[in-house]
Amino acid sequence: MPDPLDRLTALVAKDMEQVNRTIVERMQSPIALIPQLAGHLVASGGKRLRPVLTLASARLCGHKGERAAKLAACVEFIHTATLLHDDVVDESNLRRGKPSANAVWGNKPSVLVGDFLFSRSFELMVEDGSLDVLRILSHASAVIAEGEVHQLITANDTETSETAYLEVIQGKTAQLFAAACHVGAVVADRPNAEQEALESYGLNLGIAFQLIDDVLDFSAKQEKLGKTIGDDFAEGKITLPIILAFRRGDEEERAFWRRTLEELDQGEDGADLAHAIKLMDKHGSLKATVDRARHYGNIARDALGLFPDGEIKQALLDVVDFCIERAH
Amino acid sequence: MPDPLDRLTALVAKDMEQVNRTIVERMQSPIALIPQLAGHLVASGGKRLRPVLTLASARLCGHKGERAAKLAACVEFIHTATLLHDDVVDESNLRRGKPSANAVWGNKPSVLVGDFLFSRSFELMVEDGSLDVLRILSHASAVIAEGEVHQLITANDTETSETAYLEVIQGKTAQLFAAACHVGAVVADRPNAEQEALESYGLNLGIAFQLIDDVLDFSAKQEKLGKTIGDDFAEGKITLPIILAFRRGDEEERAFWRRTLEELDQGEDGADLAHAIKLMDKHGSLKATVDRARHYGNIARDALGLFPDGEIKQALLDVVDFCIERAH
Repeated sequence: MPDPLDRLTALVAKDMEQVNRTIVERMQSPIALIPQLAGHLVASGGKRLRPVLTLASARLCGHKGERAAKLAACVEFIHTATLLHDDVVDESNLRRGKPSANAVWGNKPSVLVGDFLFSRSFELMVEDGSLDVLRILSHASAVIAEGEVHQLITANDTETSETAYLEVIQGKTAQLFAAACHVGAVVADRPNAEQEALESYGLNLGIAFQLIDDVLDFSAKQEKLGKTIGDDFAEGKITLPIILAFRRGDEEERAFWRRTLEELDQGEDGADLAHAIKLMDKHGSLKATVDRARHYGNIARDALGLFPDGEIKQALLDVVDFCIERAH
Repeated sequence: MPDPLDRLTALVAKDMEQVNRTIVERMQSPIALIPQLAGHLVASGGKRLRPVLTLASARLCGHKGERAAKLAACVEFIHTATLLHDDVVDESNLRRGKPSANAVWGNKPSVLVGDFLFSRSFELMVEDGSLDVLRILSHASAVIAEGEVHQLITANDTETSETAYLEVIQGKTAQLFAAACHVGAVVADRPNAEQEALESYGLNLGIAFQLIDDVLDFSAKQEKLGKTIGDDFAEGKITLPIILAFRRGDEEERAFWRRTLEELDQGEDGADLAHAIKLMDKHGSLKATVDRARHYGNIARDALGLFPDGEIKQALLDVVDFCIERAH
């Protein structure tokens, strides 16, 4: 039984082929390093979740043309550009289990190729010619950059509030999910109510998705899948499970969080990570984060109420649950 | 007697006030670090050459509305974003004689605030609503990024050809000059011939401007103005004066260029820089670079032949000569 995301992807498989062709075609340049570096990331086996959402949203709105595929490629280019810059900013050496572009080629070309892909994305949108789409994606890009700066200045600050954290993930993750879905409704030329519904679906799915990602970094489930856990902890990243454990803890516990996350003073034997997980269990902060995610997931599901039933709608609804249940 | 650039700036002074207001207004964000960092660069006393060119081009074409000011701000935002990323890529600690943004706040926010300004620029263009402008500036941005990558891979390569070097500076510098002028004609809704004429003016002025910048890095004139010389040499940057001296030199001289620029093995007493300048004098490579610049300057001047005489046109013509004569 394929998971709902595979099912959704299969429903738009033909359009996705066009998206992939457009991506490969438009990342070309006489400067060979550009397609090499961009291709490294593009080929590294991401799930293409965002362009799938654009295609599925367009399909849900009855659109069958080629424009959605072109705009889905724009969305993926923006995503790829932000990943390239993220890895530079986070000094990450791995991306999807492979060496990151900055680890292979260095920070400099990663910054510049990110700029190139970003510009290319706008060139493609201009070809499509919709000012509404340009408005949505230029605004999303500005909000993403704002969210990244916000994250940077709250990094390693154990006093970060849940509200501030939600603002950060709305910016850095949920905004592009929202824009990806919104664009699907715009390309189908649907009324405002449907555009807003899909935007809300994407935004809330994006928040839920990021919250569960944050949970998975501490989860036995993730470990079973052969992925490492504790990466966020090692970097001192302040995510919701930690924010809740910090606020629910006593002074001794807060001293532990400050030492490990602000001063990044962590033992090498994994005992600190184990203790962190123990504290989260004690205060139920992982479970509470999943509950918070479920709340946003419910908003996402209800946003689709306007649309007639069908296999695309069902798959979009199931993707929400799937994103949340992967925590278990 | 004010120099021609000051004269041109004075002719569009009122519109420039609007440009400056738009810049300050649109770099705002609830994330205080964004306007702080962007403002540092914006306030650092650049000549605002590119937005002045947009305003002057629009005026030359008879445009008197506020759109040109808005689009000139877009051009300056793109320029500022590329400067922020350039300083990260070049690891520069100084910009216009002051500490660069990356020196003050680090590379990470410089990358992200650059992304923010870039996105903001596209948001502003979308508000203006001209797909032609969006096409010109998204294309220019892609070419700029391509030029920067090209420069990165030819850096420290003394075998770089003059042709390859011209391609690099067309991308990294001249393209935005061309777009800045082109946009001025588009906003005035002028026929293609005039749009192309202004694009050509900007492109060739940009090439001449960059060539003279390269000359000034080795020039006594620059030293008289209290600016340091030899920065490009110290970084091993391959510019036209060096390319020509290398090609015109003998094997012993080429060994010198390889040691100092490829291996970056330079003495600390300034003797290597002095020897480099001596070799350039011997082969007339600084003078030849100025001659090359004059060639592009002539193309720029002739491109304006289509337009009726007037003070704006005269100032634009004089700016070309001024850009070249600052070498002496």
